[in-house]
Amino acid sequence: MTAQPTVADIGELALLRQLQPFCSQALLGDDAAVLSPRADATVVTTDVLVDGVHFSDRTTAPEDVGWRAIAANLSDLAAMGAMPIGVTVGLSLPGTVTVEWVKRVYQGMGDCLRQYGGDIVGGDIVQSAQTMLAITAIGTVTPQRVLRRDRAQPGQVIVATGWHGASRAGLELLLRPDAAPALAARDRQSFIQAHQRPIPRLDVVQRLATWPDDDFSTVAAMDSSDGLANAVLYLCQASGVGARLQRDRLPIPPALQAWVGPKLALDWCLYGGEDFELVLCLPPERAVALLADCGKNVAIVGTVVAGREVLLVDRPDDPSGLPLTWDSCFQHF
Amino acid sequence: MTAQPTVADIGELALLRQLQPFCSQALLGDDAAVLSPRADATVVTTDVLVDGVHFSDRTTAPEDVGWRAIAANLSDLAAMGAMPIGVTVGLSLPGTVTVEWVKRVYQGMGDCLRQYGGDIVGGDIVQSAQTMLAITAIGTVTPQRVLRRDRAQPGQVIVATGWHGASRAGLELLLRPDAAPALAARDRQSFIQAHQRPIPRLDVVQRLATWPDDDFSTVAAMDSSDGLANAVLYLCQASGVGARLQRDRLPIPPALQAWVGPKLALDWCLYGGEDFELVLCLPPERAVALLADCGKNVAIVGTVVAGREVLLVDRPDDPSGLPLTWDSCFQHF
Repeated sequence: MTAQPTVADIGELALLRQLQPFCSQALLGDDAAVLSPRADATVVTTDVLVDGVHFSDRTTAPEDVGWRAIAANLSDLAAMGAMPIGVTVGLSLPGTVTVEWVKRVYQGMGDCLRQYGGDIVGGDIVQSAQTMLAITAIGTVTPQRVLRRDRAQPGQVIVATGWHGASRAGLELLLRPDAAPALAARDRQSFIQAHQRPIPRLDVVQRLATWPDDDFSTVAAMDSSDGLANAVLYLCQASGVGARLQRDRLPIPPALQAWVGPKLALDWCLYGGEDFELVLCLPPERAVALLADCGKNVAIVGTVVAGREVLLVDRPDDPSGLPLTWDSCFQHF
Repeated sequence: MTAQPTVADIGELALLRQLQPFCSQALLGDDAAVLSPRADATVVTTDVLVDGVHFSDRTTAPEDVGWRAIAANLSDLAAMGAMPIGVTVGLSLPGTVTVEWVKRVYQGMGDCLRQYGGDIVGGDIVQSAQTMLAITAIGTVTPQRVLRRDRAQPGQVIVATGWHGASRAGLELLLRPDAAPALAARDRQSFIQAHQRPIPRLDVVQRLATWPDDDFSTVAAMDSSDGLANAVLYLCQASGVGARLQRDRLPIPPALQAWVGPKLALDWCLYGGEDFELVLCLPPERAVALLADCGKNVAIVGTVVAGREVLLVDRPDDPSGLPLTWDSCFQHF
């Protein structure tokens, strides 16, 4: 087997040439990218991913590193009600990384962008001891249709798209392939897929596009990249409200519950993170309309209430419940 | 002396709260920042800076790390003819970094933005072994007034703003404080200033704003962040032309030449980099107008010619000259 050339072997200029096919041809080769003029508002978001912290060769192929990095940013755009225009890629890595690895990361980024929209419109590649990927995504939205976090109101219901805990389950299966001998191959595959190839919910944004402008003033939204509990806590904090999440309505994959039991399944659903779904607070009638639009993979999981408490309850009329707190949520340090 | 709290001591949420005063209040606290709607084109650029590679405690105070990171990006916007709207900040760092260090970096970023325009509109902070800063700047420009690299034409002249080699000289003085005992304190200070607090040439963009749209179709521009030679080589490559740089017109600071001698001064002027000035190719009459507008700190340094050769010549009519090549330019690997 011939050794693959490293980044240091070929140098910066040759590396940039090799990456050009992955990038927007119209927008490259100048000091900065020019995006088409628009009357819409520009939305911008940044995520940083570090080797050994946010990804690892053990669980993530280079294409998946690229896909996940883009999907995480497009998920932030979706949570703002915006559709993607382009991304910039800041990459720092040791000279010993193979060119092949870098190209496969760009391949994964390109795959995700082709599926959901947008181009790689710029970037920077520099040398460092640890591989690090900083993605900035730029999107566009009609100003009246921005989905904000601070619009939740008592009387609204809380809607979550997709399963929660699936990405965490996939990570477990990648770290410990023997962890779930009884799990059906289809479920195993879908958990791993949830971890390696998360889907930004731009489809929900597109469905909301058919709603009249007025309806957006009563919608609050956030993505669940840091967990379902984190999203509900943030929405409540930003809006100055409380929430009641109903335990039996939580979007826990049935196969997960069967595999790890109800306690751990609940924990992964609430705190596992990286599911990149949307959590919305909206009037009950709008929630019903959204469920009708989006089909089975969207659920009402709770209600917005006055006060500041976020409680996990067994029944809607349960007077008490288990408080959800920031302490259980993921922190970067 | 009390030990200063580290990032790990206080945790992510507390760190974000402490950084909030440095950021745009209007734009924070959601999944992504929304920038005001504009009919203009949006311009976006990214730079990554790594501890030990692009900055070091030995030569750069935290405020200067922040200032330089922003200035480098605003310089890219200036080279596109764009004025800044905002920046996103991707920061990865070990938990052992002090909160004070992070706040001082943000202070320096804020100082630069207050001076030249734009806000911190978003970001991400994560843990890593090596400190790294990824800045994405977003700017705006009337589409007809974008300054491109590929518009250089034979018959044009090459204009450089500011001194070149000054930043490299400042770095030398920071690394070896005893290197220039005979250097006047004022010159020493101005070289160090050039390295620690470079000035993005948005003033030139503002002066160009008074020109009619038509004049922009015959202007090529790039910033000199990777050196004057690198900028001229890129402009020529993008435009399919050659250039003749006139040795005695090069913007070498007189005090630098007196200090290190003509050979090294020429080398630092052409290849030192990080001066963050602008290099423009434009018709002679427009160059004269620009010089009149901008005053003494702008110079005609050469001419654009047919062919592909970039030569350093002693006289305008010199039939031969020293070819400038990519090999001498800085590469990241």
